[in-house]
Amino acid sequence: MLNAALLAIGDEIVAGLTTDTNSGFLAGELRAVGVEPVAGFAVTDDEDAIVRALERALEEAEIVVCTGGLGPTADDLTTACVARLAGVPLVMQPESLAHIEGIFRTRGIEMPANNRNQALIPRGATVIPNPTGTAPGIICPVERGGVTRFVACLPGVPREMRRMARETLIPWAAARNPGRRFVSRVFSTFGLAESKLDELLVGVVDPAEARLAFRAAFPRVQARITVSGAPGDDLEGRLDALEARVLERLGTHVYAIGDEGMEETVGRLLKERGMTLAVAESCTGGLIGHRITDVPGSSAYFLLGVATYSNGAKERVLGVRADTLREHGAVSTQTAEEMAEGVRRLARADLGVSTTGIAGPGGGTEEKPVGTVCIAVAWEGGVWSRRYDVGDRGREWVKGMTAQIALDRVRRHLLGQTEETLTAAAGGVLPR
Amino acid sequence: MLNAALLAIGDEIVAGLTTDTNSGFLAGELRAVGVEPVAGFAVTDDEDAIVRALERALEEAEIVVCTGGLGPTADDLTTACVARLAGVPLVMQPESLAHIEGIFRTRGIEMPANNRNQALIPRGATVIPNPTGTAPGIICPVERGGVTRFVACLPGVPREMRRMARETLIPWAAARNPGRRFVSRVFSTFGLAESKLDELLVGVVDPAEARLAFRAAFPRVQARITVSGAPGDDLEGRLDALEARVLERLGTHVYAIGDEGMEETVGRLLKERGMTLAVAESCTGGLIGHRITDVPGSSAYFLLGVATYSNGAKERVLGVRADTLREHGAVSTQTAEEMAEGVRRLARADLGVSTTGIAGPGGGTEEKPVGTVCIAVAWEGGVWSRRYDVGDRGREWVKGMTAQIALDRVRRHLLGQTEETLTAAAGGVLPR
Repeated sequence: MLNAALLAIGDEIVAGLTTDTNSGFLAGELRAVGVEPVAGFAVTDDEDAIVRALERALEEAEIVVCTGGLGPTADDLTTACVARLAGVPLVMQPESLAHIEGIFRTRGIEMPANNRNQALIPRGATVIPNPTGTAPGIICPVERGGVTRFVACLPGVPREMRRMARETLIPWAAARNPGRRFVSRVFSTFGLAESKLDELLVGVVDPAEARLAFRAAFPRVQARITVSGAPGDDLEGRLDALEARVLERLGTHVYAIGDEGMEETVGRLLKERGMTLAVAESCTGGLIGHRITDVPGSSAYFLLGVATYSNGAKERVLGVRADTLREHGAVSTQTAEEMAEGVRRLARADLGVSTTGIAGPGGGTEEKPVGTVCIAVAWEGGVWSRRYDVGDRGREWVKGMTAQIALDRVRRHLLGQTEETLTAAAGGVLPR
Repeated sequence: MLNAALLAIGDEIVAGLTTDTNSGFLAGELRAVGVEPVAGFAVTDDEDAIVRALERALEEAEIVVCTGGLGPTADDLTTACVARLAGVPLVMQPESLAHIEGIFRTRGIEMPANNRNQALIPRGATVIPNPTGTAPGIICPVERGGVTRFVACLPGVPREMRRMARETLIPWAAARNPGRRFVSRVFSTFGLAESKLDELLVGVVDPAEARLAFRAAFPRVQARITVSGAPGDDLEGRLDALEARVLERLGTHVYAIGDEGMEETVGRLLKERGMTLAVAESCTGGLIGHRITDVPGSSAYFLLGVATYSNGAKERVLGVRADTLREHGAVSTQTAEEMAEGVRRLARADLGVSTTGIAGPGGGTEEKPVGTVCIAVAWEGGVWSRRYDVGDRGREWVKGMTAQIALDRVRRHLLGQTEETLTAAAGGVLPR
């Protein structure tokens, strides 16, 4: 298998003023065509440092992809460094020069003299056209130990870089892997720790046949299966067979096939059923409504969100009884049930969901420590509720996990599931 | 000046499944204490590759800071690699073991055997305590060419890593720069583009005297001034003088001195005045309530949030008049005013703030395109409102910018400011 190394060039990246998202994007695109990223480098705008980083990257991989340092100014050194590394001179590339001059003409600006330098490329390199900017990219062969390796350079501006990668670099890299195609499928899960997922999938995916990888992206955990084969192979068919086995093992812990948020899944299910939702939040403070309304078109099913942080608001707005609050407290399944019923009634929605809990750092007691949360779902003629302990791991954690459980309970309700599956495995301990 | 190199360890980072934000954070913190980051590396969970990357990083810098690979499983190799590099054995560190065992005891879970491995550290290394997680960090001296260099290791979980860096690693690094001290001050601003800030501060900061850097962290822009001097120098006094000049130029565009979110500033001002707030959200869907309740202690001043996504809910819950909705539409300053007044009344709060707008991608018209938002603030005996055009740049942008303007208007109201400063500079075009 072909390997690649990523190199981000620029003072601002090394100094931490800009986060390098280019390398991650390129790594993902390269993997998708079967080129394995094996190392990453970041280096300042210093000629010797860039050449040193390029040498190291070439020790690690057959293809090195650099981003940044292709601008017209004195601190843009990438092309010169690649030429030095390859032992070739820089030559003027007429098509690139014409393209750069054209951009300035279109904008009605006189071209500064140093923009000519952007058309200088190492002799023997191939140009990666830049349809939207002045800096062309290059793919330059470099001889190392009797074999030809490659250094590819793209601009650091993500918008330009992404287009040039997708249109030219990635197809070029894919063509260097002739006869091999890679296809992946992602399973988005909730309710199981990564280690538990791993355990459940033992024997399902034969390493000789497919690659299984996990990724915890709070509050969900994703499993990704990748298969590869010759261009004529039925890779989709193999993925379908694997999918059936994965779903048999994981059941409804898989909330979506693909990279979907729980709020998208819930929205999709509500839309399919023509149903509407209202949300009453206490400890989550608006996070559930925020997540639901991140989905375009959510106004079709989301009618109302209410964040009742005070007891007075719980009583006046949602109709929670003063007796309930006094006898059971604001953080109780009883209060959660009346909140869910109250918001459903107020919004005239098909479903109401509620959260009430202790996000911390203050407010915990021995009986109800920080991380205690109660969730309820109400529908025409019924209500479901449960108390959870999500752990005292900071406000962000408590809010995020509570919102996810609440959305998951709406999903399970829509699927007709009433049993509790989330905490069965480990006595109330939630996945982290 | 002391140099540092950053090394991110983990398959998921090299593969582009996770963006490495740790290195950038650490680079910024190190720079602030006068340690210059000079290179970055990313490497897979492979022992030989990690050792190779550590060797290269030590060629570049006196201090190497690694993140990741400190977990309990077989693919967590960082500590073992550092021991191999330093030529010392791993030894059990009793305090760390007691801490790890304590965490499991508190959570009421039996400790898996392999968590013991997290307490193994290279002989001669110093422990960086991890108050919130199991993995301790280390600072390990390594001899190279007759001088002592250092490899520091922190966990990859950003929350744990940041706290350990701030409490232990950065003070340690600062102390290695004897005779030179660096102090920074951050100005958090909203309402001006980065280039405009730069322009306004021309002549305020003499480069020979202090270093000025900008950082755009949507939806705010931060300016950071760093001064340096000998231990006896009055650096705080110099920063105070610079601060006075910065505030004179930027005025109330600086909403906080320090790294504070707008929701924290608003919370602080409300608390100081003993006032309460209620929020009525349409296009922001709960985001403002979510941000306000991210601040510990917000229950002291946040009484109620209502996300009225449907017209029916606006009428029934907030008392917006059907006439207003019919004549002016849901996205209008008139509706925004009635929403703010309605939620204030319902919550019995001192202030009400509201948002209504078109987040897109659908729902725009020629008269009210995507990005049109209306914001109102209501108080005892008065109401303020205004229409903005934040631009059609995606739901996340519209929601985020609208929430920020709304919070900023509450802040300006609490400071007694009624004039519009946000869009004065560029005819309704908001900072990006």
